[in-house]
Amino acid sequence: MAEASSKQEYVVGVDFGGTKILAGVFNLQLRCLGKTKVSTKSQRGPEAVIERIARCIEDAVDECDLDLKKVRGIGIGAPGAVDPETGKVIFAPNLAWEDVPLKKDLEKHLGLPVFVENDGNICTLGVYETELHSKPRHVVGIFLGTGIGAGLILNGQLFSGFNRTAGEIGHMILEVGGPKCGCGNRGCFEALAGRHAIFQKIQSAVKAGQKTLLTEMLGDDLADMRSGDLRKAIRRGDKLVERIVEEAAEYTGIAVANLINLLNPEVVVLGGGIIDALEDEMMAIIIETAQDYALPGTAKGIEIIPSKLGDDAGIVGAAVLARRQTK
Amino acid sequence: MAEASSKQEYVVGVDFGGTKILAGVFNLQLRCLGKTKVSTKSQRGPEAVIERIARCIEDAVDECDLDLKKVRGIGIGAPGAVDPETGKVIFAPNLAWEDVPLKKDLEKHLGLPVFVENDGNICTLGVYETELHSKPRHVVGIFLGTGIGAGLILNGQLFSGFNRTAGEIGHMILEVGGPKCGCGNRGCFEALAGRHAIFQKIQSAVKAGQKTLLTEMLGDDLADMRSGDLRKAIRRGDKLVERIVEEAAEYTGIAVANLINLLNPEVVVLGGGIIDALEDEMMAIIIETAQDYALPGTAKGIEIIPSKLGDDAGIVGAAVLARRQTK
Repeated sequence: MAEASSKQEYVVGVDFGGTKILAGVFNLQLRCLGKTKVSTKSQRGPEAVIERIARCIEDAVDECDLDLKKVRGIGIGAPGAVDPETGKVIFAPNLAWEDVPLKKDLEKHLGLPVFVENDGNICTLGVYETELHSKPRHVVGIFLGTGIGAGLILNGQLFSGFNRTAGEIGHMILEVGGPKCGCGNRGCFEALAGRHAIFQKIQSAVKAGQKTLLTEMLGDDLADMRSGDLRKAIRRGDKLVERIVEEAAEYTGIAVANLINLLNPEVVVLGGGIIDALEDEMMAIIIETAQDYALPGTAKGIEIIPSKLGDDAGIVGAAVLARRQTK
Repeated sequence: MAEASSKQEYVVGVDFGGTKILAGVFNLQLRCLGKTKVSTKSQRGPEAVIERIARCIEDAVDECDLDLKKVRGIGIGAPGAVDPETGKVIFAPNLAWEDVPLKKDLEKHLGLPVFVENDGNICTLGVYETELHSKPRHVVGIFLGTGIGAGLILNGQLFSGFNRTAGEIGHMILEVGGPKCGCGNRGCFEALAGRHAIFQKIQSAVKAGQKTLLTEMLGDDLADMRSGDLRKAIRRGDKLVERIVEEAAEYTGIAVANLINLLNPEVVVLGGGIIDALEDEMMAIIIETAQDYALPGTAKGIEIIPSKLGDDAGIVGAAVLARRQTK
């Protein structure tokens, strides 16, 4: 048994979202050997989705010419409220899931130990373990993608609160009466600075007759626009895109200031696809705005830094969780 | 020594603010035997202020026909960043204090052990100990007075963050570009729902020619307006005051929703002079708005309740701290 265990030199990290499932195979030094992606197809229901997750994991392991027997365990970040003890997804509105025993069902499929956490927390754990070498006691991770999520590490531990839904920073109201959010409210951080909000602002401006290089790059309907396209347009001198991205950075800075005033973390780390693509355009504005809006003295010595993990924060964090739990 | 100690059956709790110092003498069952109040006079500098605190404590004890020898210890809530270990006030912008050894200096004056905490935390501790009998793990206390402060209990412990300034909820931006705040920014929670903001709105409306019963009650300049006057005016049918207080309650509900989304506490308790005076007018609106703005599922089972301690939360919490530390 000890011998068998010593041969299990890999973990799998899974980033399980509303639209896609990404599985990465990692060695115990957290080097990624390979990844596989499939669509979630949440409309097919939990059972079918869990089968897809299992298959995605098996495919990733197979792609690396490995066998499941070589895998110590699986970590998985899920988009919703999660009970890490039981591995249940308590509820996940994007998936229309309620009380789904993800850990138990996935363990049945794979015959391997599975560990489940909330996706914002898992991304923060990934950043904490691989990028924050000083091991600060209090960290907030903010991840800007299509939506905006966050994870909290307080007193060195992931914090998830009473209903295990802490970190829903994307729906912090920053501008009462502001633009409509997917959640139904107005003026949420996500509706002001998420990818969807940025893209919508650009599309509205184009419809209103404003000029942008993006229409030359992507056509008048701006089909398949990606965060990287915004970076390219800005670097070629696109003033419209520059202004819209700057506004998003200012709102992000205000959100960071709110967190500094409220929680006073030692490190605020920003990640996700938008920061990955637009770090040079956004970080300086985020930092300056946050320092402007934080109460005097509260931001002293607090680091506001970008993560380099980009879209891999989820699978890295999930791998960290699996490694930690199977030690 | 044991005998002497067993005779020390009292603690003193001090609420030390930018304008006034309030000291209360409590028995070990936290019954208040008497209080004394003096003005702070912070312009005279830390040494003079610390003497005033000492005198206020001595007067309170004397008023109760007691002797300092009967007192086990002093708890004190200070308006700023505090290091509870050393008892230093790290910085307190309202007092223009930086690195003042409050504990050490006050112990020299009184010859008694002194324990220092941040004022928002101490009010929350008072509520937690005397009103929250289920001892929830995660609590946010929000105190609406001239300004707005808060305290956090996370995992059963007071939380103060990296610079010990956590809980500065009054300066959370709720409305980018909104009304100007004393801190220099715009759209802070305090500038939308603090006593000063409410009074200013009423005064502007009166200047603009709107009618309110308050001018009959207090004269055209609304001199010496108090929160209780607003309650009286509303109960006599004053629509202007009703609308302005309702707006403040809505902003408070949005702030509570931001906290539920972000920290997901088990209990949010609202206190301070405004809630004390206007509980019946505000609480239902606060709760309804918070539930509207919290993401679906996140507010499930979370209690949003008023504190009955009113302006005494500070001295009660400070007495709790002193009792706890001298056990």
